[in-house]
Amino acid sequence: MTDKKGSKANKQDNFSEWYSQICGETGAKLVDLRYDVQGFIVHRPWSMRVLRKIYSFFEEEVEKDNHEPMLFPTVIPEEHLLKEKEHAGFTPEVFWVEYAGDKKLEKRLALRPTGETQIYPLYSLWIRSYNDLPLKGYQSRITTFRNEMTTRPFLRGREFMFFETHDVFETHDEAVSQIKKDLIMMKNTIRDKLKIPFLFFQRPKWDVFKGADETFTSDSILPDGKRIQVSSTHDLGHNFAKAFNVQFVGKDGKRSYAFQTCFGPGIWRIFGTMIAIHGDDQGLMLPFCVAPVQVVIIPITFVKDPEASKKVLELSKKLESELKNLNYSVLVDLTNKTPGFKFNEWEMKGVPIRIEIGPRDLEQNQVTVSARTSKEKLAVKINELKNKLPELAEQNDKVLEETAIKYFKDNIKNAKTLDEVKSIIKDHRGFVRIPFCSVMLDGKKCAEKLKTETNGVDVCGFLFEKEEKLASSDTCAVCGKKATKIVYAAKSV
Amino acid sequence: MTDKKGSKANKQDNFSEWYSQICGETGAKLVDLRYDVQGFIVHRPWSMRVLRKIYSFFEEEVEKDNHEPMLFPTVIPEEHLLKEKEHAGFTPEVFWVEYAGDKKLEKRLALRPTGETQIYPLYSLWIRSYNDLPLKGYQSRITTFRNEMTTRPFLRGREFMFFETHDVFETHDEAVSQIKKDLIMMKNTIRDKLKIPFLFFQRPKWDVFKGADETFTSDSILPDGKRIQVSSTHDLGHNFAKAFNVQFVGKDGKRSYAFQTCFGPGIWRIFGTMIAIHGDDQGLMLPFCVAPVQVVIIPITFVKDPEASKKVLELSKKLESELKNLNYSVLVDLTNKTPGFKFNEWEMKGVPIRIEIGPRDLEQNQVTVSARTSKEKLAVKINELKNKLPELAEQNDKVLEETAIKYFKDNIKNAKTLDEVKSIIKDHRGFVRIPFCSVMLDGKKCAEKLKTETNGVDVCGFLFEKEEKLASSDTCAVCGKKATKIVYAAKSV
Repeated sequence: MTDKKGSKANKQDNFSEWYSQICGETGAKLVDLRYDVQGFIVHRPWSMRVLRKIYSFFEEEVEKDNHEPMLFPTVIPEEHLLKEKEHAGFTPEVFWVEYAGDKKLEKRLALRPTGETQIYPLYSLWIRSYNDLPLKGYQSRITTFRNEMTTRPFLRGREFMFFETHDVFETHDEAVSQIKKDLIMMKNTIRDKLKIPFLFFQRPKWDVFKGADETFTSDSILPDGKRIQVSSTHDLGHNFAKAFNVQFVGKDGKRSYAFQTCFGPGIWRIFGTMIAIHGDDQGLMLPFCVAPVQVVIIPITFVKDPEASKKVLELSKKLESELKNLNYSVLVDLTNKTPGFKFNEWEMKGVPIRIEIGPRDLEQNQVTVSARTSKEKLAVKINELKNKLPELAEQNDKVLEETAIKYFKDNIKNAKTLDEVKSIIKDHRGFVRIPFCSVMLDGKKCAEKLKTETNGVDVCGFLFEKEEKLASSDTCAVCGKKATKIVYAAKSV
Repeated sequence: MTDKKGSKANKQDNFSEWYSQICGETGAKLVDLRYDVQGFIVHRPWSMRVLRKIYSFFEEEVEKDNHEPMLFPTVIPEEHLLKEKEHAGFTPEVFWVEYAGDKKLEKRLALRPTGETQIYPLYSLWIRSYNDLPLKGYQSRITTFRNEMTTRPFLRGREFMFFETHDVFETHDEAVSQIKKDLIMMKNTIRDKLKIPFLFFQRPKWDVFKGADETFTSDSILPDGKRIQVSSTHDLGHNFAKAFNVQFVGKDGKRSYAFQTCFGPGIWRIFGTMIAIHGDDQGLMLPFCVAPVQVVIIPITFVKDPEASKKVLELSKKLESELKNLNYSVLVDLTNKTPGFKFNEWEMKGVPIRIEIGPRDLEQNQVTVSARTSKEKLAVKINELKNKLPELAEQNDKVLEETAIKYFKDNIKNAKTLDEVKSIIKDHRGFVRIPFCSVMLDGKKCAEKLKTETNGVDVCGFLFEKEEKLASSDTCAVCGKKATKIVYAAKSV
């Protein structure tokens, strides 16, 4: 993996450059950044195939949870965007459409920065009574727009892939249950399928989403130790319901505002985080279930021995069709590149299993198999291949999972005082777990002090799944008052 | 199906109103037109589910034909859009983004009206030599934008669903083969799966797409007799290759411009045409393979007989799970609406098969089954249901297909003179098949005369699949010169 300057970045020492290279033309060709509008990128086939799988995992999850698909326009009229006052805070980042041809539009239109203000006016029309609740809708395979100052493929863009659910309930209890379900969906998809470890935080009160009462996020750690947020769920309370008049007539005949939640797994960021966490200096490593090619077959042929080469090609194609019938995504590389080149290329693209077939293999009725996650080459008898592949697939995912979990656990450390935090973050990456005075608004001062004195360590939140126990002697690492919560703090992407 | 004014439109007599009603809130709830930007609509779950299936049919087809998925930005810089001179004709319909927040953008950005001018600059970078060809890419599940003056759900919109392939070849022969493949894809999807009859035309020379050498379209007929174009394929020749420098080094070492084609099935229009052709005054009728619910089970329960009602519900749920295991999309309607209301609602939504289960059915170990396409109610023993359903599904599709084909055939008529055309179109709908002097530029005058004198009958083109024979005595229906082609003419949507 070399860029045009010929240098090859190392993930451990220069994550940022490594990441750029792996995404680009000299890497796994996931994106092309040469599109002529800054911050807007072109998705190439390899990334599209993985991203579609990630989308499909979330579609499956939300459908199981009775969400229905819908699609809203790409544009939002200005007056709607501004209607929820807090939410109006998005406007500095908004792209505006003001002309059609030569004609100025009567009202200017925002390229959707997020869905709330476009969806809820319609929810207000669709919901009449408790019979219409819960209402659970989602948009998938859409993009959204924010004029970010700095951009990086899959991590931050001016147009990026989006997925969002928008749910409406009679009671706040149902809203809270939904937040728990959103967490489970994140576990089922990114932890179990994609092998991305994360913590599910409730954010401190001073750092919730515009217009939300509470915000919950799934946060992981990149190889440079920075925290990355890969999903958010918002408990919107009545805020948007009041702004957009989302009301229902209850069983008691009374009209009430509904409770709303929304959930947005960051499709792009999840992919970017997966690239970052699993990849190595040879390229991508992909969990078996999302690999666009799961098994690549590389025939080793020799111009000098056309007879044997013919047989090698025949066997390659025969195996391809047999494995396709077993529902593997398989490809025979028949290009006229050298085997060495092919090995590197498919390693770079993260194909989990490689099968080489050469004349010597043929003689012994075997193939040479290797997994992307190991250096080992195995000779496998052809009639045993069928049994060996599931084992290798499982091993591929196990290596990814164990490596990722180890890195994640190693990068959560405990501190009791501001000095300890400072000392830890000198050579530590990831989360610092600290006792903290308050996650309500009165804790904001300590969070600000923490950030200033540590050159950017933010309070991310506290665990939603379990109440973490404090010792009775625990005091806030910043102000020294009695601690009320264990919070997690980190530098962020 | 009644609108707010309480009147119910009839498909035969008032197609336009019937179509609006079936799409809307008082119909099958496919769209909501109350979004606050004219011409931009909200897709509700029922239409999203069908549209996703239609997308998946095309994805499957183009993948089989070795196209690779890609995704380009929603915005195109102005200079690229204007680079292909003919193509620049799109600009009166273009929405322009000029601001981000308060800042004016350095260059204004068009909301994509179609993909050529965004994709080919990158193709120019990706293609080096014949080894990179053919290059076949596609974008699916995207939308595109044109400031149309009049809009109708799924037929014409300011933002509408898009699907496009963009192919690059060494030779023009390969481009022509691709056009034939595009035709086959249309047959496999819309004719075979969706039961939409169409003709595949080569358009007359005076009416090709901006920047194309030749244009080919799939055209069907709506119930009001208007021609509707549901796909286009363009033979782009070297036009865009020259504008965007799409070149390759051939086997001979020489640099040449590549030949390009692009293919765009109109996902929206295909859906709209399917609604229009198959529906009746009771609502949608859907081919079995795209129905979001293929089988609806309606339990008939009585408050007075809780014992029997309980058994009815048990059997309903048991059947639901059995049919789900057989891969049917099935739903038990457990809402507290009346059976009559439910019957109407699911008819309106076009569910192909309805199963009623009442206490009397239970006693006789049977269910009452009816198909959307027939008025007949069948008593089917429960243990025979498994065998009966595929038969009913097939029958559903057969009725749709035969009805559609009959209407289509009945609406292709022959005329030899302008007077005959005029007389036919008085009470005829659909295509008139006429001998014509020329489909090259010199035929344009006759086409214009035809249009003027018939109040809008356009020459659509001539069949691409087969050269239709002319009698040696055939003369152009308009100018009387020797005819060189049989053309098809019609009034258009």
